[in-house]
Formats: sequence, structure tokens, C-alpha cells
Amino acid sequence: MEIKEYIELHQQRFLDELCGLLRIPSVSANPGHKKDMKAAAEFLKDRLMDAGVDHAEIMPTKGIPVLYAEKIINTSLPTVMVYGHYDVQPADPVELWNSDPFEPVIKENKIFGRGADDDKGQLYMHVKAFEYLVKTNQLSCNVKFIIEGEEEIGSPSLKEFCKQHKELLKSDIILISDTTMIAQDTPSITVGLRGISYLEVDVTGPNRDLHSGLYGGAVINPVNVLTKMIASLTDNNNSVLIPGFYDDIILVDEEERKQLSRAPFNSETFKKSIDVDEIGGEKGYTTLEHIGLRPSLDVNGIWGGYTGEGAKTIIPSSAHAKISMRLVPNQNSMNIDKIFTEYFKSLAPKGVKVNVRSLHGGEGYLAPLDSKAYHAASKALEKTFGKVPVPIRSGGSIPVVADFEQVLGVKSILMGFGLDSDAIHSPNENFPLYNFYKGIETIPWFYKYFTA
Amino acid sequence: MEIKEYIELHQQRFLDELCGLLRIPSVSANPGHKKDMKAAAEFLKDRLMDAGVDHAEIMPTKGIPVLYAEKIINTSLPTVMVYGHYDVQPADPVELWNSDPFEPVIKENKIFGRGADDDKGQLYMHVKAFEYLVKTNQLSCNVKFIIEGEEEIGSPSLKEFCKQHKELLKSDIILISDTTMIAQDTPSITVGLRGISYLEVDVTGPNRDLHSGLYGGAVINPVNVLTKMIASLTDNNNSVLIPGFYDDIILVDEEERKQLSRAPFNSETFKKSIDVDEIGGEKGYTTLEHIGLRPSLDVNGIWGGYTGEGAKTIIPSSAHAKISMRLVPNQNSMNIDKIFTEYFKSLAPKGVKVNVRSLHGGEGYLAPLDSKAYHAASKALEKTFGKVPVPIRSGGSIPVVADFEQVLGVKSILMGFGLDSDAIHSPNENFPLYNFYKGIETIPWFYKYFTA
Repeated sequence: MEIKEYIELHQQRFLDELCGLLRIPSVSANPGHKKDMKAAAEFLKDRLMDAGVDHAEIMPTKGIPVLYAEKIINTSLPTVMVYGHYDVQPADPVELWNSDPFEPVIKENKIFGRGADDDKGQLYMHVKAFEYLVKTNQLSCNVKFIIEGEEEIGSPSLKEFCKQHKELLKSDIILISDTTMIAQDTPSITVGLRGISYLEVDVTGPNRDLHSGLYGGAVINPVNVLTKMIASLTDNNNSVLIPGFYDDIILVDEEERKQLSRAPFNSETFKKSIDVDEIGGEKGYTTLEHIGLRPSLDVNGIWGGYTGEGAKTIIPSSAHAKISMRLVPNQNSMNIDKIFTEYFKSLAPKGVKVNVRSLHGGEGYLAPLDSKAYHAASKALEKTFGKVPVPIRSGGSIPVVADFEQVLGVKSILMGFGLDSDAIHSPNENFPLYNFYKGIETIPWFYKYFTA
Repeated sequence: MEIKEYIELHQQRFLDELCGLLRIPSVSANPGHKKDMKAAAEFLKDRLMDAGVDHAEIMPTKGIPVLYAEKIINTSLPTVMVYGHYDVQPADPVELWNSDPFEPVIKENKIFGRGADDDKGQLYMHVKAFEYLVKTNQLSCNVKFIIEGEEEIGSPSLKEFCKQHKELLKSDIILISDTTMIAQDTPSITVGLRGISYLEVDVTGPNRDLHSGLYGGAVINPVNVLTKMIASLTDNNNSVLIPGFYDDIILVDEEERKQLSRAPFNSETFKKSIDVDEIGGEKGYTTLEHIGLRPSLDVNGIWGGYTGEGAKTIIPSSAHAKISMRLVPNQNSMNIDKIFTEYFKSLAPKGVKVNVRSLHGGEGYLAPLDSKAYHAASKALEKTFGKVPVPIRSGGSIPVVADFEQVLGVKSILMGFGLDSDAIHSPNENFPLYNFYKGIETIPWFYKYFTA
């Protein structure tokens, strides 16, 4: 049976199963969701067993468990290892969702819910593609699944897990759908990822909130100070001012910049999609380069003092921010943590205490265009979309991809089916059903071409 | 009967009654406390009736009602009008309190609870001093009480209320205990107050939180922008950079600076009391001058993006802050609102939307030292403390004091019994029982000397 026919026969069940997975609020950032993490892993384990793996096991890590599964048909055949994650971003701000983030709804041929794209929807395509290959006796290689529950918090345990289970995780290629494609009619393969350095900072002044009248003007205000410190991290051209920040970057040559600029991009559409009348970024680079080739520094959250309704006249005792930097290949996240911390502390005036701690970090990744896996993915996408896919560098981070290469010595192929409009990490995350089914249709072709 | 004896006889009842008032969480900043506002006003109305007013009435305003009460013994005698407020600051951050903010406890001869000093404790001294004068037939003048429920949110309705009830509020002096004294053994009278301009600002960028990987570097981050804008409001010397900000200030001459500097102040004790190793403030001024003579600008609260546990990789859609400026006499709060707004908006880069709105404002106040009321207060404090009180300029704001002068044409006398260590507006607000009873003891002497 052809894959298209199989999808047609089972499409409602595939969707119902995905909805079941989306209903589980497996938010890794919040320790209150521990039970949900387990439930999501169990759910996927059961579905993988149904699909035909020989063995599936929820394996402990020092953090949230990893779900591992495999079907070994012949040890002399190649092995494809599918990576995905069953955890999702927090749903905040919940009030901006048009429907319950954990009660999926179908609207305008899209499925809405936290994780609909990232990564439950994209991961589930692999489970169903695998099911098809098994049920129709077309599996041409060994398959392993490694599905973690900590991707959204920087995969703090997976590297160690890989070190402990090198033998178990032996494979020839790691296949990942956790990225986007350019458009529904323009497939693409992600050949570059940014690294990340994510820190939390605290600035503490007086030992308690003080009356802003009785102390105002005489006491160093930690929020005023924090704003000055953060303001000093970047210049007005959006360049990062941390000494040494750009030192390790390998500048991309003009030829490669030209190639990458072939990806279609319309700045008016881009601006409209996020409703801004001006794009930001360093001068001298295009928007695609800002995202794919250049590092960035963003405050992800800030808080301090009175944030309730009305006016409370205090000098806050402390101020806090979450600050992350996206890094490009060859910048090292631990080194960036270090120089950030040194510089940030140097910005503090006397009279406040500064604390900086890393919440997570990961390295960037570059994939070769001339590999067997790239060619297999390219041919699979061409087969189902009718177009040769475009290689792109993504601005996102999947730190495990660098870890896999470093620890297991295995390259990854990033065949993403998401769209920029899927609002991942935002309210009203969604995944077009077209993309979901197109992913299921494409993946078996990858197996076929990779093992040909 | 002497006042000291009366206090001795009734001290437990006085304290129990105050505890009853402190148990009512009359937080004006939070509309959810509407019922509590009413309960606090009713409580005080009943106690004033018990104490002997002829008439007490909870009178509507466009906001939270005013409690008015009076005892008119002879219209040809002078009238003292007592002002106070029955609303309190929010108790946040509640987790830093050692006991329930709304379940008062006595520890180390202090009463702990939100409002213990500001202003329920200080206001209640007046109710009990009045009770003494009535019950012992020693009242020598007419007395009015005007007790509002919106002081902590800037008294938005009281000015209009005064305009509507000019006749009812006719008086010769307004007596207020809502300020501090220098120390338990050093009485003082507040002769200057700062004004205030309190605003909330919003900076909005993209129409939703964006993935910081897929957009980071290409999109203007409203939190990054807000920090730069706030950082540009002051220089590194803590001077305010808003054009025109200092224009209307009347510089205090050297002679007056010398007089005010007689107030005892120890910077080591000050630093220790708030646990900082460095004091802030404009160069060229002392700490007492920073607080009493100079305007200030403080961020009272800031928020935006993800502030929960762990790492969420977003570019926030918007960022917000509450910013207030303490003003000195002759600075006009509405003008300051205006020039702040103009300057703040001018700091915004293209690509973000900025919104600024005033939450409240009020003018500063200066009281003459050569008035009958000042002399009466000075003699009363000398009588009970054995020391001539020191005139001080407070950094706090009681906007109604300027309003009373403007609308009713009546000066106020600020005879405060609080201490800096009372932690008003902070967790663990408290009021020493010594000060509470000393206040009750002193107030009847003020009436005596003022009407002599």
C-alpha cells in the first residue's frame, strides 16, 4: 500500500491520537507538571508499541526521563535514530489564547494547542510514518527513537544520558523534525542552528522594599540600576557590547551569504505577520542573516517591585531578568556565560549585590550539504512537494544536535515541517493539518532513499 | 483627670480597638477590597460616635467614600480639623512578612500589621485623644474629622470633595499625624513635603511573544528597549535628564540648608538599617537633602515577558513599568507628567508603540514656622517629650495638604509620631506602643495651646 492511501485510511485516527498527546500539559519548565511529563512519555510509549517497536522503555536521567524505543530488523542494516521531545513550552500568557492551550481544537484546517507543532505534532509524524512502514512491511532499516522531556529547558540531562548509553544509541543518522520549512509550497532543510546561553540575573539593593518618598533620591534603586546595566549590554545598533563576544565567530563568506539569500523573504510580509512597522537588528545584515548568521541578545523576562494594579510607592528591594543570547557556530556557550557574567557584574555600581546564574546553554550546529542523509532528505521532499528543497540556517537552537555529534559522533538531518506562522512558544500555537499529513507522507521516502 | 492617667486606665482597650481596625484589609489600590474599605470606614465611624462626636457620616465621593465627623461645641470657638486615612498600602510581598499583615501581633513592644503606623495607628491616636477631651469635659474648641480611603492611591477624589463641601470643612487648622519623628527621644514637626508624579508606561513591539531563536536579532525587543528608555531618564549622578525637570525648583539658600542639617543623621546607622554598603543620590547634596530638598525618580515596578520558573525563550510582546518622581515645592505635578511623557516618548526607537498614563499626582507643601499652630505643636511636643522639636522636611508626599491649602485656604500642621524603622509600605510594618501612647498624650496639649 502506498503511503498516501494509508494516510487517507487512517487520517482521523492519526489526528485523534495527536489530540490525546496535546491534552497532556507536559511543561518541563514547571516542576509542578512532573506527573504530566510521565503521562506524556507513557502515552508515546504505548503508541510506539502499537506502531510496532520491539521494545520501548522510559529510562531515568538526572532530570526528566527519556523515552527510548527501537525496532532492530537486521544489525547489518543501517540504523536511523529519530529524535524528538515530548515536553512543551509554558502556555503563558494563557489569557491571550483563543482556546484552552491543552484542549486542542481544529480551526481553518489547523490544529491549535501548545505543542501542536513544537514538537508533539512534528514528532508524531514520525511515529505514524514508522507505523506505516512496519504495518506494510516496508521497513528497510533499523529504527531507534530517543524522545526527551527537557528540550524546552535546554536538555540539561540528555548529554549525560548519551554518554551513559553510547552503545544503545549507535546509529548512522539522527532524523529530526523540530524546525520549520520556508512555506507550504517551498520545502527546506535546516543546515545550521544557533547555540544559546540563557542566564538569570538578580540585582539586590536595600533589605526590603522602601517607601519611595522617605528614601527616594537617597537610596540606590535596584530596578533603575538593572535597566542601566541591561541597556549597557547592547549599543543602539543592536551590537552586543560584551568584550570578546564576537571573537570566536567565523565570518560567513560572501559566496555563502549569496546562497543563503536565495531563500525567499519579504520584509513587508514579515512585518505584517508580527504587526510591527520597523524591523530591528544589526546594521549591515539582512533579516535572514540577523536570524541565521548573527548572534543576538534578548531579555526574555524582567520583573521587580510592584506590578499589581494601581500605584504603590516603593523603592523595590531587588530586580530580576532572564537574558539569553543566541550564538552562532564556534561561539562556546560556557565561554559566553563567563564573559557575560564578568561584564555584567562590572556594570554594577557600588551599593548593589549582583547575582548571575546560567539556566541553560547549548552549542550551534552546521550540517554538510554533500552527505547521503542530506541527499535522501532532499529527494524525499522533492518527491512529495515537487520542488528541490532550499538549504537554510535557522535562528533557533537544538543544543542536543551539537551534543549528539560530540558524544555519539553522529550527524543529524533537520527535516522540519513547521511554518513560521505556527506561533510556537506563543499563544495560539498551531500546526496546519496539511503539514502534519505531508510530513507523514515524506518521512518514509527518506528511509527509502537513505537505505537505497 | 490628667491624660496620662486616662491612658493608663484605658491602654488595653485602646490597643484592642486599634487591632480591630488593623484586621480590616482596606487596601485602596486593589478594587477587590471594596467591602473592606466600607468596613474600615464603618469601624471608625462607630468608634468616633463612642468617643463623642455629635455626628458622623460616610459620605460618597467619585471614588472611595470619605468619613466625616464633627463635634461643634460653640461656633465662636476655633475649629481643629483632623485629617487621616483609613486605607493602607498593599501587603505584597506577603511572603516576607513574619506574621499575617492583617492579624496584628505585639512583639518587643511594637504592634505589627499593615497600617500599624501608616495611617491607622497614627489616626487612631487622634480618636483616643479626642475621646479623652470629651469624656473629661476638657474640649476647648470645635473638632472635625475628615478621614479618607484613597490616600495610598494619591487621593484622587478628595480635592473634588473639598470643593463640594467647603462650608462643612471650614476650620482654622488641619491637624495631621501621617509623618515620622526623628527618634523616640527627638520629636520633630514636618514643615515640608514633596509632591509626586506617578506614571505607568507600556512599550509594545510584536503582536505576540515570539520565539527568541527564530526571531532573535531581527526584531526589536520591547524589554531591551524599555531598559534603554528608563536608563536614559537619569544620568550616572542620579540627576534627572528630562528637559525642564529642574526649571521650577526654588533653590534652598545656604542658611536654610544649615538649619535643616541640624537634624541628627548618621549615615552608618542609615546604611545598616536598610543593609546597603553605599548610599545613592545626586552629588553635592547630603542624604537628608536628597530626601527633603531634591526631587527624585524611581522605578516602582517593572515587568514584561516570562517571569516564571525556568527558561522560556521568547521575545516578549510588551514591557511595562511604574515610574514615579518625588517633586519639591513649586514643581507642578501635571507639568512634570507632561514633560516626562514627551521626553519618554522621544526616547523610543521606531518600531515600538509607547503608552504613558498618569496614575496619580500631587503637589509639595511648605509650612511656616512662625504660625500659632506651629508654636502650639512645638509646645505640646516639648511638654510630653521634654525637648523642643526639630523642624524637618520630609521626602514623602501627602498631596491633600497642598489641596487643602488651595481649596479650603487652610494650613496643615504635620505632627507625626512614626519612626523611620516602622517599615511603612514594606513588609512587617509596625508602630512602637510607646509612640502610640505618646501621641495620644501629646495631642490634647496641642488643642490646649492652640486655643489658649
